[in-house]
Parts: sequence; structure tokens; C-alpha cells
Amino acid sequence: MGARQTYVLAAGTAFPGPLVDNAALAARFGTTGAWRQWVDTFIGTRTRHLAIDPETGKPHATLADLGEEAGRQALTGAGLAPGDIDLVVMGSATPDQLMPATVNLIADRLGIDQVPTYQLQSGCTGAVQALDLARQLLSTGRHRNALVLGGDVCVKHLDFDTDFAALPPAQQVNFILFGDGAGAAVLSSEPGPEAVELRHVFVRLVGLGRPPGQVVEWFGVADRDDDRAPVLEDYKAIEESVPALAAEALDEVLGELDWSAADLDYLLPPQLSGKMTARIVEHLGVPDAHEVTCVADTGNIGNAMPFVQLAKVLPWLSPGDRVAGIAVESSKWIKSGFAVEKS
Amino acid sequence: MGARQTYVLAAGTAFPGPLVDNAALAARFGTTGAWRQWVDTFIGTRTRHLAIDPETGKPHATLADLGEEAGRQALTGAGLAPGDIDLVVMGSATPDQLMPATVNLIADRLGIDQVPTYQLQSGCTGAVQALDLARQLLSTGRHRNALVLGGDVCVKHLDFDTDFAALPPAQQVNFILFGDGAGAAVLSSEPGPEAVELRHVFVRLVGLGRPPGQVVEWFGVADRDDDRAPVLEDYKAIEESVPALAAEALDEVLGELDWSAADLDYLLPPQLSGKMTARIVEHLGVPDAHEVTCVADTGNIGNAMPFVQLAKVLPWLSPGDRVAGIAVESSKWIKSGFAVEKS
Repeated sequence: MGARQTYVLAAGTAFPGPLVDNAALAARFGTTGAWRQWVDTFIGTRTRHLAIDPETGKPHATLADLGEEAGRQALTGAGLAPGDIDLVVMGSATPDQLMPATVNLIADRLGIDQVPTYQLQSGCTGAVQALDLARQLLSTGRHRNALVLGGDVCVKHLDFDTDFAALPPAQQVNFILFGDGAGAAVLSSEPGPEAVELRHVFVRLVGLGRPPGQVVEWFGVADRDDDRAPVLEDYKAIEESVPALAAEALDEVLGELDWSAADLDYLLPPQLSGKMTARIVEHLGVPDAHEVTCVADTGNIGNAMPFVQLAKVLPWLSPGDRVAGIAVESSKWIKSGFAVEKS
Repeated sequence: MGARQTYVLAAGTAFPGPLVDNAALAARFGTTGAWRQWVDTFIGTRTRHLAIDPETGKPHATLADLGEEAGRQALTGAGLAPGDIDLVVMGSATPDQLMPATVNLIADRLGIDQVPTYQLQSGCTGAVQALDLARQLLSTGRHRNALVLGGDVCVKHLDFDTDFAALPPAQQVNFILFGDGAGAAVLSSEPGPEAVELRHVFVRLVGLGRPPGQVVEWFGVADRDDDRAPVLEDYKAIEESVPALAAEALDEVLGELDWSAADLDYLLPPQLSGKMTARIVEHLGVPDAHEVTCVADTGNIGNAMPFVQLAKVLPWLSPGDRVAGIAVESSKWIKSGFAVEKS
């Protein structure tokens, strides 16, 4: 790293439509009370925002819509104008289109132009990748203020007209697990009034020789009749690996900064599901750190989550407070983490 | 930028299957001789590699296959082992899947692990974005050797079972314009025996308020019966804007390095089609620079092109030789350029 520090000036979030609870999904699919109990017991995700109305199929928002809203919030919070932003980085697994990259539609709507933009194709760790790249690019001095975005919209893969009862549980669960949303943060090489420093970020591929734990397909006109499952998870592999990878990631963040677990004031844990996040947090063993999560309410919101967590925690920070965020991606196994500290 | 220079150690390329000429496509689609003349006159792309056999529909290769091959070539050329690579960056508009990111499948197959990987969602400028990021990340000293990849495989959007004659020319032309391929380069903070320096890279969004000139869709299970065109180009806008944007990009590269047009030994021009590249090169007005292109032979190969051009030009370079590469993306209008010089 160069000599320049990187600061988090503000964060923003955006969600489409009202919260949809499990009862509404159960009614939509005509499932039984037993099904809801199964969801509550094993998944633990209660509600989520969806980019379409499950009843009517009418779209509430695109990823560009959500990214624009979150980005505008973050700019306003930072007290910056679009012309102050000289770098835009975004992470998403589910861009609205393959081209143009959604980041460029969002930049355009916000009035950001004549700057480099980068959109990372990634799952849950894409937001951390975006924070990492923005921090590195700010550290070289080439840029001063970065808008960093993350979000996912699963609507193209949620077929509410499907015969739900005929789907295997591994497919049914995707309607429960995922939610839609976007988040954003403004990073700067200037501390701003709050002086919340992004102390460390790392991302590391750790899947050598392992099959993917999650696969998400896209279809073109030539293969859209293909019957591949659009979204596949290997839950056994995920349940076995993610808590351990999360613990390694937290150790790495703490070790890098010479922080002890007892120094940690806030923990931003990985997502997947309400139950899974609870299990991971237990495994991480930092009972004194306040846990900042929303996965049981929003579902797994992919690249939005770290920004939503940051937006929650930033207003709570007192001088000296230390925050660690962890994200793990089971697609091809990536661990990542970041640390924030208020001066 | 920090004090560290970045060097191009080697490049590699990979193409699927044999070259497919316009006569073979015309026969496949049952079109007339007049159609072929129209293609020759207005498009000027003679052949291309395709990731499927147009006769049988049998796949030749995935993007991961091509990226693996190009990456292995580049590693071999650089004389580096997988364990020497501590950063992987890739650009593509057409990843094999949304998750895992294709870059991670390629890294895995090459035996690269425990390093950060980034996959940029982008059209023709994605390769330059990848070069830019790798150069910036090497400049901070955090990394020493980067594998940079770019490639595209259009096979999911080439429906050879379609009623070709019923398609409008703007859709027919997509079968002519695009080819499949991948390329790679190894960048390093050490000069290696050849000391070919990557002197400058820039990428800049310049589309404020303009509609996209190119749109590429993806379909999920919930919208795969949607009748949106998978690939749309606004050729009028592209023909009007791309030559001017390319000229601006070249001016910026030359201006940044205080090079004159007469200093330039090799020009790596933008792609689109054989005719379009010829027009752009004429507009750039650097007749003394040797033009390095292959678009008439390979078609528009998206994120592969700058690497394919680098692979061609690297063996030709003598000490003091100067190279400028330009890429323009019409999706949401991005201009980009880079410069290479041999010590």
C-alpha cells in the first residue's frame, strides 16, 4: 500500500417493493403449513424484498434502479456532487444485461462521466472485491473519491409460474433464501468529518480443485430451452465449509491489524440464510462484538449485504470503535474480509 | 502511480475450432450469392472461429477452456509457474455462467490459488480495464506477477436453428460480426529479459446521457420466453462515434507520454468489423505506424482482441519501439487506450 489512507464517508441502501414474508410465499405457491415450519426451522429467513410482485409478476425495480437510489443516498450522505466522483466500482452476480454493464447505467443516471468504471462479476464477495479495488486505486493517488456499489436482483431466475410443488427442495429453497437489493458507499482519500478509516481489505480464491458450491446459469437465445437448473447449491459443502472459511477470514483481518478478538466492537458476518449466519457467528467466537446483520429480514442479498451492513453500523460508531466484515463465496470458494475503524 | 513500472512478459491466445468463412455461413443459412456480396462490401469480415460447429451444433470449447489455454501459453511464455502468479484479472462480456466467475475456473485449472481474482463485466474495453487494474495493483507493490485475461464466446446467442431469412439484417449481421476467442498476458513489476514496459493505460466512461449503441441481454428461467432481441446494435451511432472516440483515445495516450504520432511504430486499432477497423485506422492518421489487427480474420472477438494484438506484436518489437492500443465500447460508450514500449 502507498502512504494514503482510505476513508468511508457514507453508505446508502435501496430495496424494491414491500417485504414479502414466508406466509405470502406459501400462499402464492399453495404450500402447506408444514412447509412453512420446515422453512422456519432450517432456513430462518423470515422476509425479503423482491424486484417483482410475486402475485402480479409486475416489476418493482431493476438493479440499475436500486443502484442509482443507493448511490444517490451515499453521495448525499458524503456531501459530494457527482462531479466529485472520479472512480466507480460495482459488484454483482446478476447484472440487468450483459452489456451495457449496469455500473455504467447507474453512473449515467447519477450524472457521473469521464471517469473509469469497473463492474465485477461475483457472488457474495463481489462487494468486498469492489471495496478492495477502490481502496487500492485510491491508494495510488490516481483517484480521490470512489463510488462503490453492490447489488443483486434475482428476478430473472424466480419463475413464479413454475409448478412449485414439483420442484425438489433444493430448488424450492431458492425462493426463500434470496432477496433483492443494492447498497453503496463513498470512499475517499480525505477523512471527512467522521474519519472512519477502511483499514484493511482482502479477497482470496481458495477453491483449488474443489467443485463449486454454488452455480448460477444464464441463458442465451440459443440455449434457453436447455433444462439446466438455473441456480444450484451444494448445501452440505456450504454448511461444512463456510463457517471455517469465515473464521479464517476473521483471523486474517484481525492478524493483519494486530487486533485481538476482544478489540472488536462490531462484526458484520456473512449471509446465506438466517440460520446459517447464526451458526457462523457462533463459530466465530467474538461474543463481545455487536453483530450487524439483516439476513433473516432481507434474505441473502448478494453483493448488497456489506454495504447494507456498513449503512447500519456507520451512524453507531464512536471514536476508537473497530469493525470487521466477512464475506464468503461458495461458488468457487472465495474468502474475504475488511476492517473499519473510527479515529 | 507509485514508482514501480509494469512490464508485459508474454501473451497467449486461443481460438475454438477451424475458421468458418462467409461461404460456409451462407450455405448453412441457405442464403444467396447477393447476401455474401453484401457482407463482403459492407462488413469486410471474412472468417471467424466459433465455439460451436455451425453444422452439428456440437460445442468446441467454453470460455473457460479458451482462457485456460491462452493463460497457460502466457505463463509458459513468461517462464513463470502458477505459484508465481499473485493476481488474476479477466474481462468478458459473456462469462460461461454468472457464478462461479469464469476467471476462477480458469485459475483453478491452471493451479493458481490463494490469490485475489477479479472478473470485469465489459465489452470491447474490458481487456483494457483488466490491464489497467493489473497495472494499478502491481504499482502499489501488493502484487508482483499478474495473469490478465480477456475473452468472449457468443455461442449462447448464436441460434443456428433460427429462421435466418426471416431475421432483419441488423440481427443477421451478428452471425457475421462476432467470433470467439480468448487471450492472456502476464504483467510483472520485474522487466524480464525483454523489458517491454506497459507505459500507460486509461479507461473512461464517456456516454453521459447517450443511449447505448450496443445491448446484449441474458435470460433467466423466468424470462426465457421473452422475445427481446439478444443482441442489438445502433450501427449509425457506432459508425458516427467510434472513429472520433478512437482518435480522442489515441491523442490521450500520445499526449500522456509526450509521444508524437510519428513516434508510433505499431498501432493496435479497435475492432467491430473489417470495414470499420479500416475506416477507423484511416481516421486515426498514423500512416507510418504498422497496423496490427486480425478482425477481418477472427471477427470481433470482444475482450480477446487486445491480447491477440499483443501476442502478435510482442515478438516483433525492437529496442525503442513504441506501440499504442485503442479500444472503444459502444454499449454505454467507453474509450480506452494503452501504450507499450520496449527499452
